[in-house]
Amino acid sequence: MHARFYAPQAHATGDVVALPDDEAEHLTRVLRLSRGDQVVVFNGRGQAFEATVQRAGKGTAELLLGPACEAASEPRVAITLVQAVLKGDKMDDVVRDAVMIGVAAIQPVITTRSEVTHVSITRGKRRERWERIAVSSAKQCGRAVVPPILEPEPFDSIVALAEERQLPDPVLMLVEPQADANAVSLGELAGERPRDASLLIGPEGGWTAAEIATGVERWHLVTLGSRTIRGDAMALVSVAALFAKWNEY
Amino acid sequence: MHARFYAPQAHATGDVVALPDDEAEHLTRVLRLSRGDQVVVFNGRGQAFEATVQRAGKGTAELLLGPACEAASEPRVAITLVQAVLKGDKMDDVVRDAVMIGVAAIQPVITTRSEVTHVSITRGKRRERWERIAVSSAKQCGRAVVPPILEPEPFDSIVALAEERQLPDPVLMLVEPQADANAVSLGELAGERPRDASLLIGPEGGWTAAEIATGVERWHLVTLGSRTIRGDAMALVSVAALFAKWNEY
Repeated sequence: MHARFYAPQAHATGDVVALPDDEAEHLTRVLRLSRGDQVVVFNGRGQAFEATVQRAGKGTAELLLGPACEAASEPRVAITLVQAVLKGDKMDDVVRDAVMIGVAAIQPVITTRSEVTHVSITRGKRRERWERIAVSSAKQCGRAVVPPILEPEPFDSIVALAEERQLPDPVLMLVEPQADANAVSLGELAGERPRDASLLIGPEGGWTAAEIATGVERWHLVTLGSRTIRGDAMALVSVAALFAKWNEY
Repeated sequence: MHARFYAPQAHATGDVVALPDDEAEHLTRVLRLSRGDQVVVFNGRGQAFEATVQRAGKGTAELLLGPACEAASEPRVAITLVQAVLKGDKMDDVVRDAVMIGVAAIQPVITTRSEVTHVSITRGKRRERWERIAVSSAKQCGRAVVPPILEPEPFDSIVALAEERQLPDPVLMLVEPQADANAVSLGELAGERPRDASLLIGPEGGWTAAEIATGVERWHLVTLGSRTIRGDAMALVSVAALFAKWNEY
């Protein structure tokens, strides 16, 4: 199988595209490919092409796009993962895993119990890091789509975005079984498979009572069994369960 | 919430039990608990008790068992995870995650493409390590059951165990979508929720053609979407999907 590279400018067969710096490094220094080698290029928006290396050297690489080729198919339901930013580097793993399993977009959210601030995320260039991880995960899992990592927002802004329909509907808020009497298990959630959906997952310390009250009024509260799932595994487990429920698997 | 400890001898209210060494260390040195402190004890076979520290010191701890108490409920389908041993320490993560999500037992299997041997597993005391990880994961996820880690077996022995009905039926073998024309997606698998089931997951390099041919003759071949899932995430994703399919969630 040919190595896969991300080239956002790739549009059509016959185009010559330059790879972004990270990708050119990967091609030239890590894989040591050179003129004439065959690779696959995807543009992050769903298109993939066979491609031939035309020039490669000193961290630059130009590729000639050949015929379009197939990539891993996208899920039939486009899930926006609204994930509370976790401690330390755990969010890195969540981004990697969420892209691998097939979410459509990732909206980081800063909740009351998130142990990070918007300032620390910006100063640490965390969003740029998550974007690089999303590209890397898309390369490995065979997708031609790189899910966007949206600007991190406080919980209140997420509420406003949902009100304005800027987050896909239905909105599912994952909670502990004992959190609220209105919560139903994920399997009991009514309705057919939607075209898209939003899935809210809280931080290690959970949602506050106020955040849950906000959710009860507006969204669907769902639970996922009685074993405690680690915060950084919650996205993978719940998206897998939703995909199974909605006949993606 | 009280700290949870694993005491395999815990049987009935009123008993006084000594904790195993690791657990006593955890109680005395890490959590620094002492006489009179309240904890929870589980015996790894489904029972949990409130308990009071009676003696604690120098790496030993004795607990008086109080009334039985609830633990996280066990899944309605008991899945034996038959997992190919993965490279490096990745099997540690698989054991941790599989216990967390709720498998009933873990049967390590050495396949043609596993990059380990039975001798290296034995010499490295890997099984003992996986057993400790299973206890630790059960403590964290709230289960009162510690799934057994069975003796690692070569693929041929797994076939024999299944023939002798020493592995739960149905046996599902997870394969890549293009592996075999007989493979069906997990959602298309026929039949009601079984009481138990076996789930076979291959190594990073996948099953050989001969292993798949063996599976086609005997078992159900199932697939899980078209994105490539990392070997160490496959158990978590596929068990979550099976639980959703079988109304555990």
